[in-house]
Amino acid sequence: MDFRFQQTVPAAWVDYNGHMNDAEYNRAFSQATDAFIDHIGLDEAARSEYNYTIFTLETHICYLQEMKEGQAFEITFRVLDYDQKRIHLFLSMYNAAGDLVATLEEMLMGIDVNEGRGAPFPEQIEEKIADIFKEQKGLEKPKQAGRVIGIRRK
Amino acid sequence: MDFRFQQTVPAAWVDYNGHMNDAEYNRAFSQATDAFIDHIGLDEAARSEYNYTIFTLETHICYLQEMKEGQAFEITFRVLDYDQKRIHLFLSMYNAAGDLVATLEEMLMGIDVNEGRGAPFPEQIEEKIADIFKEQKGLEKPKQAGRVIGIRRK
Repeated sequence: MDFRFQQTVPAAWVDYNGHMNDAEYNRAFSQATDAFIDHIGLDEAARSEYNYTIFTLETHICYLQEMKEGQAFEITFRVLDYDQKRIHLFLSMYNAAGDLVATLEEMLMGIDVNEGRGAPFPEQIEEKIADIFKEQKGLEKPKQAGRVIGIRRK
Repeated sequence: MDFRFQQTVPAAWVDYNGHMNDAEYNRAFSQATDAFIDHIGLDEAARSEYNYTIFTLETHICYLQEMKEGQAFEITFRVLDYDQKRIHLFLSMYNAAGDLVATLEEMLMGIDVNEGRGAPFPEQIEEKIADIFKEQKGLEKPKQAGRVIGIRRK
């Protein structure tokens, strides 16, 4: 999948530590996820037509490198897994030098807006997710996927 | 520890789904973490005096319930673990009815600002962290701590 999300760190995202604030990484990943949701066919018109949307159930971020104001970044997407109503998605954020600066692992769920609860993806959407999953299936599992937070002691 | 962080969902935090956007939960947790860092003695004056600050290494959020505009919430803090330079922190967000609406588990690291790398907590700060840890040690492990993201199949 060649689809990527590109952005530059605006001044408003920089905190007292002089770097992109942790919550703004989440914002960038959230905007990128919205772009991905559009990409698989669930743009505003489709969400309205299907009465269907996507909720985030769970996220896990690894902060690997600082980002400063004005620095460009690019986010790539990997469908690690999916079922009838969930997508296990992994996003990688790279700086202009190509260094991995942060990752987001997340579980998304398709929601029937009328019922306000999880419901199977519309057929065309599931086909698109399946296509991406098949295309990426051979790729290595990202190092930051499946992590548990904790202090390891010898 | 009686310290709590209180806030109300502003209109700007609501997205096209009509609820608090996922990235804004992270913002609320990030602001709460800043308040906690002040609480343990690392306020702006102390950060400047010690040339010391806190970076976030990793976060894991569970989204349990929607929050709407104007709804009040409260965040509580639990020190799950710590060492010389890291805090394994767990935040619980409750709505006005007392329901758990989201959790954030995170690993924080103390940073020597001059060196730009991890460094032991100033003595007074470590004592404060140790006090909170001891006080909370008997409490049950939060259900959402230590989670791995994934689709479980039978």
